[in-house]
Amino acid sequence: MKIHKQKIELQTTTQIEFIDITKQVEDVVAASGVREGQVLVYSTHTTSSIIVNHNEPMLIQDFMRMLYRLVPVSDRYSHDLFELNRASTSDGRSNGHSHCKAVLLGNSQTIPIEKGQMMKTEKQSIFYVEMDGARKRDAVVQVMGE
Amino acid sequence: MKIHKQKIELQTTTQIEFIDITKQVEDVVAASGVREGQVLVYSTHTTSSIIVNHNEPMLIQDFMRMLYRLVPVSDRYSHDLFELNRASTSDGRSNGHSHCKAVLLGNSQTIPIEKGQMMKTEKQSIFYVEMDGARKRDAVVQVMGE
Amino acid sequence: MKIHKQKIELQTTTQIEFIDITKQVEDVVAASGVREGQVLVYSTHTTSSIIVNHNEPMLIQDFMRMLYRLVPVSDRYSHDLFELNRASTSDGRSNGHSHCKAVLLGNSQTIPIEKGQMMKTEKQSIFYVEMDGARKRDAVVQVMGE
Repeated sequence: MKIHKQKIELQTTTQIEFIDITKQVEDVVAASGVREGQVLVYSTHTTSSIIVNHNEPMLIQDFMRMLYRLVPVSDRYSHDLFELNRASTSDGRSNGHSHCKAVLLGNSQTIPIEKGQMMKTEKQSIFYVEMDGARKRDAVVQVMGE
Repeated sequence: MKIHKQKIELQTTTQIEFIDITKQVEDVVAASGVREGQVLVYSTHTTSSIIVNHNEPMLIQDFMRMLYRLVPVSDRYSHDLFELNRASTSDGRSNGHSHCKAVLLGNSQTIPIEKGQMMKTEKQSIFYVEMDGARKRDAVVQVMGE
Repeated sequence: MKIHKQKIELQTTTQIEFIDITKQVEDVVAASGVREGQVLVYSTHTTSSIIVNHNEPMLIQDFMRMLYRLVPVSDRYSHDLFELNRASTSDGRSNGHSHCKAVLLGNSQTIPIEKGQMMKTEKQSIFYVEMDGARKRDAVVQVMGE
């Protein structure tokens, strides 16, 4: 069995951002030499997610609107009061909403591999979903198989 | 290590549909000869999902109502304008809402295997969730283990 | 390839409860002897979920508020009528909302392993999310790798 992994490093630039990391994941799959198996894409953070969907700019606006509507920034989040009360050690972010959004979308995706290629279709892109940017971020890409 | 996979082909008949594919997945697990390992069920589309939950017809109505309430068809989705503006190549579907629903539910499930059987309990069924039917669809079922 | 698994048994005490099972999962990973690979944490029930996020008590209140807001207990769920009509065999729970919540959060998480440790960061805790307690519950923790 082959196990190969690599970290992808990202610099996000705004609060909510969908970053297409398909090419980076393809490169790790190619470097792994795995012909049959799986790739796991995992966010090591608690205010970001990994999703697979269509990379169409207006659709990404729809995703953002859905996230803001289902988990409004304008609500009161207890976590933000907690952070306020430990201001000396807090990073000063009111990001209760970001954690909630991350729980809804989940923090990893697994994609099967066949003949060295991900078995996703052309319209499926892999996104790193930033929900508390801008920040430096990373994701683990791990390939297992033969 | 054994790696075995198979595509399941489906024909959906309506816009939102929960199709129980438990038996098909069980057949692939049995055919794999894997005694200890995992099975990954993966949707290769961007407007459908895989979930695991209870197959009770009235509960499935509740799932549908939740999906329509959280992501209303009646909202305006930018993606639908995008598709409208490229009408010559578009499939003519206003399916911004379907992509949004798919992002919420995710597009795969992984289930552990013990002694050749999925370690799910009796009330857990595996569903292919169509959110932009009717269409031809397929899912990848991949078993890894020993 | 090594495959090692163990069941975690839990006793929940209230309707919605976030139980931090990070330590139990770490123990299974350690017992597995796997240095490079993955761990799958899987809920065998249909009204509970597994998530990875920050264990901060006020944030957990935010998660609960989000779940109650997105899937209100006060809505009418057809599943509850179904259970009412088969009262002799029903467990008497009106838990349509719990199934809906479980579908939103999903019922497993996969975390990569490196040098015998989960590649999660310090702020990432693994939670068993009870959404129809109090009950006896269990989760499968399965480690695969080398």
